Amino acid sequence: MAERPTLNDTVIDRLESALSPDRVITEPAAVDEFKDPYYIPGDDTFTASAVVEPTTTEEVQAVMRIANEFRIPVWPHGQGRNYGYGGPSPRVRGSLQISLKKMNRVLEINEELAYAVVEPGVRWFDLHEALEAGGHSLMLSVPDLGWGSVIGNSMDNGMTYQPYGADFQLLCGLEVVLADGSLVRTGAGAIPDNKAWHLYRRGLGPDIQPLFAQSNYGIVVRAGVWLKRKPEGYMALGLSLARDADLEVGVDAIRELRLEGILEGVPSIYTTLTAAPQLIDADVDGPALMTEEQIQEIADRTGVGRWSTRTALWGRKKIVEYKLERVKEVWEAIPGAKVTHSPLYAPEDYGALTNSSEQIQAGIPTLQLIEATPPNMGHIGFSPIVPLQGKEVRFVVDEMRRRVEEAGLNFLGGVMAFNERSACVVGGIPFDVTDKEQADRAFGVVRRLVKEVGELGYGEYRAHIDYMDEAQAVYGWNDGAYRRFAETIKDAVDPNGILSPGRHGIWPSSYRPQQSDAAAG
Amino acid sequence: MAERPTLNDTVIDRLESALSPDRVITEPAAVDEFKDPYYIPGDDTFTASAVVEPTTTEEVQAVMRIANEFRIPVWPHGQGRNYGYGGPSPRVRGSLQISLKKMNRVLEINEELAYAVVEPGVRWFDLHEALEAGGHSLMLSVPDLGWGSVIGNSMDNGMTYQPYGADFQLLCGLEVVLADGSLVRTGAGAIPDNKAWHLYRRGLGPDIQPLFAQSNYGIVVRAGVWLKRKPEGYMALGLSLARDADLEVGVDAIRELRLEGILEGVPSIYTTLTAAPQLIDADVDGPALMTEEQIQEIADRTGVGRWSTRTALWGRKKIVEYKLERVKEVWEAIPGAKVTHSPLYAPEDYGALTNSSEQIQAGIPTLQLIEATPPNMGHIGFSPIVPLQGKEVRFVVDEMRRRVEEAGLNFLGGVMAFNERSACVVGGIPFDVTDKEQADRAFGVVRRLVKEVGELGYGEYRAHIDYMDEAQAVYGWNDGAYRRFAETIKDAVDPNGILSPGRHGIWPSSYRPQQSDAAAG
Repeated sequence: MAERPTLNDTVIDRLESALSPDRVITEPAAVDEFKDPYYIPGDDTFTASAVVEPTTTEEVQAVMRIANEFRIPVWPHGQGRNYGYGGPSPRVRGSLQISLKKMNRVLEINEELAYAVVEPGVRWFDLHEALEAGGHSLMLSVPDLGWGSVIGNSMDNGMTYQPYGADFQLLCGLEVVLADGSLVRTGAGAIPDNKAWHLYRRGLGPDIQPLFAQSNYGIVVRAGVWLKRKPEGYMALGLSLARDADLEVGVDAIRELRLEGILEGVPSIYTTLTAAPQLIDADVDGPALMTEEQIQEIADRTGVGRWSTRTALWGRKKIVEYKLERVKEVWEAIPGAKVTHSPLYAPEDYGALTNSSEQIQAGIPTLQLIEATPPNMGHIGFSPIVPLQGKEVRFVVDEMRRRVEEAGLNFLGGVMAFNERSACVVGGIPFDVTDKEQADRAFGVVRRLVKEVGELGYGEYRAHIDYMDEAQAVYGWNDGAYRRFAETIKDAVDPNGILSPGRHGIWPSSYRPQQSDAAAG
Repeated sequence: MAERPTLNDTVIDRLESALSPDRVITEPAAVDEFKDPYYIPGDDTFTASAVVEPTTTEEVQAVMRIANEFRIPVWPHGQGRNYGYGGPSPRVRGSLQISLKKMNRVLEINEELAYAVVEPGVRWFDLHEALEAGGHSLMLSVPDLGWGSVIGNSMDNGMTYQPYGADFQLLCGLEVVLADGSLVRTGAGAIPDNKAWHLYRRGLGPDIQPLFAQSNYGIVVRAGVWLKRKPEGYMALGLSLARDADLEVGVDAIRELRLEGILEGVPSIYTTLTAAPQLIDADVDGPALMTEEQIQEIADRTGVGRWSTRTALWGRKKIVEYKLERVKEVWEAIPGAKVTHSPLYAPEDYGALTNSSEQIQAGIPTLQLIEATPPNMGHIGFSPIVPLQGKEVRFVVDEMRRRVEEAGLNFLGGVMAFNERSACVVGGIPFDVTDKEQADRAFGVVRRLVKEVGELGYGEYRAHIDYMDEAQAVYGWNDGAYRRFAETIKDAVDPNGILSPGRHGIWPSSYRPQQSDAAAG
């Protein structure tokens, strides 16, 4: 184990005067609180040197100026709940973590235009609570776990399930601290006294908003969040498939319903072992490898089937009722496939929802999924993008499952229809976080998946910090033209190369030679 | 009038060997064919030196290498139909125009996943024809005029009217020739042998696709275009308002129907003088200033009202029928407001459509709008973005109309709901292209609008080449932080500053000092 990285006293002094001593964390155990709990026991590859907790944009700017002066790499995060992808841990060992948890104000809620404006420490829980406390009949598209940062999740291209969850529609209009500590506003935000910053997606000239997701070009300190009015009718749906072999025809049916506008958002097709605890609270998963027969038995006994789709309908009551009819017509044409649904809820009914599937798709944040998971059960993610076609999804699922099972681990996860044409096969590889040998196997198989499934033409939508270079290498067409273009921009906007070096495989020039060697080795 | 700009013989020789002599146009009259016809008579401010017509990506790359070698500014266009915003004319006098008209192949049509892949010379007409010729039941979102380039229009943030017309959803996945002549692919296109390039909107790392619209960072030579399956039911709607004062309540109703998901795409509310010829072929507009009474008389006589919304419904028949009911319920609550609609069309009916409003919203390209315009009637555009709120739209329309009428010109145009929260007030200032005095007045009032409406906080979504610097200056928050960030990228990705210098006010460093002076002066 290498010596623990630290900041020198001058830097600590400077940070403490710019912020305050209690918001500059250097004590090792306290620093290690800011780490993905799903790690190989004892691994300290991605240990940070310290953590700062700014509370204002000006403090973030001050931290960036100090980091430039002393050439210290920094790694920002919102809530740091990037579990399974490395959490808030920095790609470069010894980086200064910038936790934005304490920038947690909901700056605006606009009822008429149905949007909110938040800082990066605002969690799904916080924004939901602010909407309810203000008596707004507005609904937020949320992910499975409500504890993360709205901005942080979106800046990792994280998905949510309502209509704005598809195709990155949730955020509109950013304020960003650039690497040199200066501020920029995207879109109409660049017009003084404008009113369209959080309404219109572009401005005049190149659209820079999407540059800041998954990148190391800036730190988002403010964002508009699009909301929906709570619809007249809301209904959660479960679409099950009896046999593993039905996946292909099920995926094609989801695509057609999605293209037809009957289904919206991000319908998600889960494996039995993922769906069973999530949908019915049966404790069925775990690290021991299950046989095909055992899985089929659970599928039949619990009624979730071999593949179970979670989706919902939102809108005018009559439209929801007709859509349900149409979903049944298409889905029940598949032998053994079943449609289950919740009651048709009105906006005043949301308080009574307790089932996490119904809550999440109604925009009510929960932690049920993680509360149902044994504390020693971690996971690591591998999530390639695949065309929303049965034969394609089948092929990639099989390629992934075979390798995971060869490592003696269960294949968990599912197929999330990110839009009407593509899906992400989200593979959560489970392991016992107290068992180094099993964790090693899990991390090993993900390394293998990134490379081998990548060579088949399927790249990740989001990479674990352990594999960012390997995942970026998959996007290597024309001798890495994309990476080189992104790195040309990186060098221009962060000449000292201090902001999140190596994030998703994009490095500043000062790191590039040795990183290329590392990637080759 | 300044001396006509030319290229030197060495450069012409080099271009002729890289392409072929017939595709290097230097004869002045032939070069002037590549110009917006709506210009002040005799104005040669934006005259090009020559035009090249590459037919392949390799030829575009070769042109860029020659342009770098000789430091020649270039200005690409698809079909050059950017009428009212400067057409294909270059911002910098003497630029070499790159016409991509002859790169006109439809490279792929994917029926199952509902997309096509096109080169930049492919017009709306061409892609529509290819879809029909191939017997596909797929529908393309088109703009008012079908003669433009699909890619070119999109790269100016141009709008179309079906659901993918809102929020820039039409294109997915680009191949781009960079300023140095190298090639980059966006999103999953960077994965060799991938199948998700035109399906998923992002990749791994920063999303660079939106950087290439309205920018001078690259030349798009290939793009995926999302299509819809022709729906079971399609119906065009007209929503009229009897009095000018109804605009406010009408805009709010459109917003609520849009947020509710009843209306989709880009509903457009036209003034009487725009709607009348467009909807009923009455020849009512023209340069002579009309009185309030004359306009009201036309509104009443033609039945289009003072404001007339063109929109449509697409989907399963039962949903279209219910949506019509809901639209009537909301709209007819406005006194004097009327809902008219086409029959409910099935996919096999599209061949029989002749009304341009019905055709355009069914994805059938037409030229009826321009064919109905007298050949001497030009226009120049001023198009600020405004919140989709009645009081805001009212305010901006009045501010624009007053200034246009003070110049003795009619206010044409309308309010296009670009998405569910924002609209563009599209002002087309009409003038007689053979009348220099009238043209001067039209250009003068647009200069005034850019500045004065900009100072009120409303910026343009797209600027005429005459006013790009002034329009960009409106986006000047924090001492032009957005422009400086965009120019930092510009200098990094085009160090010689040859690609479209000055487009939408973004200049390479070599031009910046004098341009700043010009903008200040």
